[in-house]
Formats: sequence, C-alpha cells, structure tokens
Amino acid sequence: MELKLKMWLVGGDEDSIGGGAFGDGRYHLLREIGRQGSLRKAAERLGISYRKAWGDVRSAERHLGFELITRHRGGRGGGTSVLTERAKELLEAYSKTKAGLEKMAQKQYEKRLKPLLP
Amino acid sequence: MELKLKMWLVGGDEDSIGGGAFGDGRYHLLREIGRQGSLRKAAERLGISYRKAWGDVRSAERHLGFELITRHRGGRGGGTSVLTERAKELLEAYSKTKAGLEKMAQKQYEKRLKPLLP
Repeated sequence: MELKLKMWLVGGDEDSIGGGAFGDGRYHLLREIGRQGSLRKAAERLGISYRKAWGDVRSAERHLGFELITRHRGGRGGGTSVLTERAKELLEAYSKTKAGLEKMAQKQYEKRLKPLLP
Repeated sequence: MELKLKMWLVGGDEDSIGGGAFGDGRYHLLREIGRQGSLRKAAERLGISYRKAWGDVRSAERHLGFELITRHRGGRGGGTSVLTERAKELLEAYSKTKAGLEKMAQKQYEKRLKPLLP
C-alpha cells in the first residue's frame, strides 16, 4: 500500500465553488504554458480545450490576486503566452511544498502505518 | 488563502477503482462506530445508509487485509459493533499522520507560498 496526498490552495478574492484556487491541475497547466510558450499548445498537450485552459488561468489569477501569464497576440503561430515572474515563483514554491509533504508522508507511512499492515 | 490537504491509503489485495482503501470518509465512519458501539447508529449520525456504511467497512477490510470491526448480533438494540484493536491502532496512526502533515503544510504555506500572495 501507499499513502497518497493531494494539496491545493483555497480562498482568495473570489468565492470558490467545487474547487480550489490552485491545485495540481492548474500547476501542470501553467508549467506546460511555460514550456510551450503558448496557451493553445499547452492545452493541446494536456488534452483540454483552449477555452477551459484560458478559463482556468483566469480563475486562478482572480483567486490569487495577481497575473500569471502575459499574452502577446498575433504573429504567424497565433501569439505567445509567457509566465510572469510571480507565476514562476509560485510554481517553484508549490512544487517544493508538494515534494516536501510527499517526502514526509512517505516517512510517516513507513513509521506509523506500514507496521500495522499485514 | 490556505493550503488544504487530502490523504488516503491506496493499494492492497483488491483492485481499487475510483477511490482508495482508506481515507477521511472511512476514518470518520470507524471513529463513529467506535463511539456509538453500533454500525447502524454510526451510519445514522453520518447521514449515510446502513448498506453503504457496511460496504465501506468491508471494502476497507479487504484492502487493508485485516478486520476492523467485530459484530455481535442480536439483543434489544439490534446488536453491537466493536472496533478491533488493530482498527484502533490504525485510527490513531492515521490521525497522527494527518495532523503532522497538516502542521507541516501550514508551515510550508507560511514560509513559501504566503510571501508570494498579495
């Protein structure tokens, strides 16, 4: 067996119904936007619609209270999307926090839970 | 804002589709059975059907590989259900693990994430 963890940020300026402001889904979306330099390409990679990807980014921005991507429209490829510095910092902090918690979860599992299992 | 956590045990002898072997729902159900001394009363308290409560306990037992409750049928109140010693140990270990992870999540939030928020 293993111990699984999920974490997400909740609250912020906007009421949240049925979901947090920022969790793994939005983390992966932003990371992909950073890699691809394009919201459209990131959405394609993740198998979600452009509309959903854009809605998720906007929702996260409203909850968090700061901009996550800067869009440059036009050009041959249909424009680019670049992560803001603050978005990059958020991704790094989120990733480190999650890794730290997962490491602790693994330790706690080995120490407390595993000894009880057959 | 705040950082929320969810944790659950997965795997075990039985394939798990759409859910883990043991998470907060089953933790609260067992804790309530321990308090009430009755599966029926625990289900009533939690607003779930007896059938679902019983199915959840049996599913958790199959995944974990050991018995969680001992049932004594009959009597005026319709019988009693008592937690096994191992179930009590599991509840304690689960609870301590979750409390430890939540404490760490809070610290990590204050240290890494909160400074990034407006």
